[in-house]
Amino acid sequence: MKSKTITLDEIKRVISSLDLISAIEQGFIDYSSGRATVPPIGELLMDKGEVHIKYGYIQGDDYYVIKIASAFYDNPKIGLPSSNGMMLLFNQHTGETECILLDEGYLTDTRTAIAGAIAAKYLAPENVERIGMVGTGTQARMQLQYLKKVVDCSDVLVWGRGKEKLSKYKTDMKQHGFDIETTTDISGILKNCNLIVAATPAHEPLLRATDLQSGVHITAMGSDTPEKQELESGILEQADLVVTDSIEQCMERGEIYKAIKTGSITKEKVVELGNIIAGKAEGRTSDDQITVADLTGVAVQDIKIAEAVFEN
Amino acid sequence: MKSKTITLDEIKRVISSLDLISAIEQGFIDYSSGRATVPPIGELLMDKGEVHIKYGYIQGDDYYVIKIASAFYDNPKIGLPSSNGMMLLFNQHTGETECILLDEGYLTDTRTAIAGAIAAKYLAPENVERIGMVGTGTQARMQLQYLKKVVDCSDVLVWGRGKEKLSKYKTDMKQHGFDIETTTDISGILKNCNLIVAATPAHEPLLRATDLQSGVHITAMGSDTPEKQELESGILEQADLVVTDSIEQCMERGEIYKAIKTGSITKEKVVELGNIIAGKAEGRTSDDQITVADLTGVAVQDIKIAEAVFEN
Repeated sequence: MKSKTITLDEIKRVISSLDLISAIEQGFIDYSSGRATVPPIGELLMDKGEVHIKYGYIQGDDYYVIKIASAFYDNPKIGLPSSNGMMLLFNQHTGETECILLDEGYLTDTRTAIAGAIAAKYLAPENVERIGMVGTGTQARMQLQYLKKVVDCSDVLVWGRGKEKLSKYKTDMKQHGFDIETTTDISGILKNCNLIVAATPAHEPLLRATDLQSGVHITAMGSDTPEKQELESGILEQADLVVTDSIEQCMERGEIYKAIKTGSITKEKVVELGNIIAGKAEGRTSDDQITVADLTGVAVQDIKIAEAVFEN
Repeated sequence: MKSKTITLDEIKRVISSLDLISAIEQGFIDYSSGRATVPPIGELLMDKGEVHIKYGYIQGDDYYVIKIASAFYDNPKIGLPSSNGMMLLFNQHTGETECILLDEGYLTDTRTAIAGAIAAKYLAPENVERIGMVGTGTQARMQLQYLKKVVDCSDVLVWGRGKEKLSKYKTDMKQHGFDIETTTDISGILKNCNLIVAATPAHEPLLRATDLQSGVHITAMGSDTPEKQELESGILEQADLVVTDSIEQCMERGEIYKAIKTGSITKEKVVELGNIIAGKAEGRTSDDQITVADLTGVAVQDIKIAEAVFEN
């Protein structure tokens, strides 16, 4: 078994040279066209942490991918990151191990950020005047870095609960060429920005329907369980277009799950991102529409990013 | 992440020095006492092969284990083994990767053979006069090698369909110190041996109830799906004791599944091996009893063998 182990440092060295947006767009297309086989997620719950196993393959591809991702919430107390993980790439024709990507969760963060960029690419209004970022964590940073590749706007208003984290975010993201203004008033985000990304683990809605303006696109990245919610369901109700990465998955978790449960929208209103990318469904058709993308993450993103890193 | 990758060659170098029988006995005890968490098997079916993901942990242990095992049946045509796989060992307290065992399926074969030895240790009659081996494949070879550690008998009658394979088996196993006689008449096995191991992928019963003698122990290793069967259900009906590694699992696959389905036995007749090892249930109580062990393989065996290899 001549399998190759690739470390996080090696992954980080190669990743900036890859066209991951195209790769993951293709993943969404494959998913929405039914070419992806993605079995239910495996789960192991322990006293101190939990592990999720996501796996699958795209018919006609050369590989299948198994991703192991763990979260151990007490780790920071002993100086370890709470998230960890690896991706394993195997040959779809022989089962041979092609590569072990010891990415420690970095590729999951990256493919999540790229999904946000893809949503913005297809759904943001033509002129993004100001980006509104809800949250100051890892994902709120990475989202901005990948948005830069698809949106010509460096003016950012960022919301957070704590002034210290906001100030740190501002300092850090300035180094990436962004003009950052900070706020602790969430209503300012919807009132002043026309491309908004929500990237928090909130369990109660942050963005309010009463603050909604026309001509905005909102991507909700944070809510990936049945409990989490970042947007009031009224926002989805008022939206002209509600998009998701996986209709099957958003029936069970995320903003769309909440909005359908409360009767704010019906399943028929929801369009899959892969079908918009493929031109099979309509995306934004005018600059004054309100669009919402609710992304909970699908294994095709893992498959495509692992393949792209391995092949390069 | 300072994880260690261990190759098949390194595994083979260390394995003979390990007390794997004790380790896996403890695994069966942990399983039967409810200390093991073993979620449903993950499965990926592709055009040319299939992959199974088995995973779990034992409460109070230091690790959790994820095993990936594949079978690609056309591989031999291009000079590759059909089976492949690896075991991944993680820290149960932090989620850190401790070790990647690139065993290519060897540890699965080994833990399966050891389970057969454990069944013989607790269930074989005191004086094993002749071992009867049904099958001539990899598992039929490994079973014999591990039986040597628990049973003082080197006299073996082996059954197979093809004379060439029988002759090869005889030559190979002689080198391990066994006296091998071969036969293509299956009835000879039950008529002449008092410790029998069936290790074939048969889909129709091989061993017949009419040939059954008193004072025999039979371990059925081969049947691990709802379709496979090596023993006529009448054998389980006549047996004084029917043992399995997992009562839950044998309700859905293997010899016991078949025998219950045809009404030959009821679930109440079945005893778990871990409870016999722990002294909580009775094993063989006299030399003229007929005992049957039906083993379909449980993830605790993978957990225990991976831990033992890693710790050494």
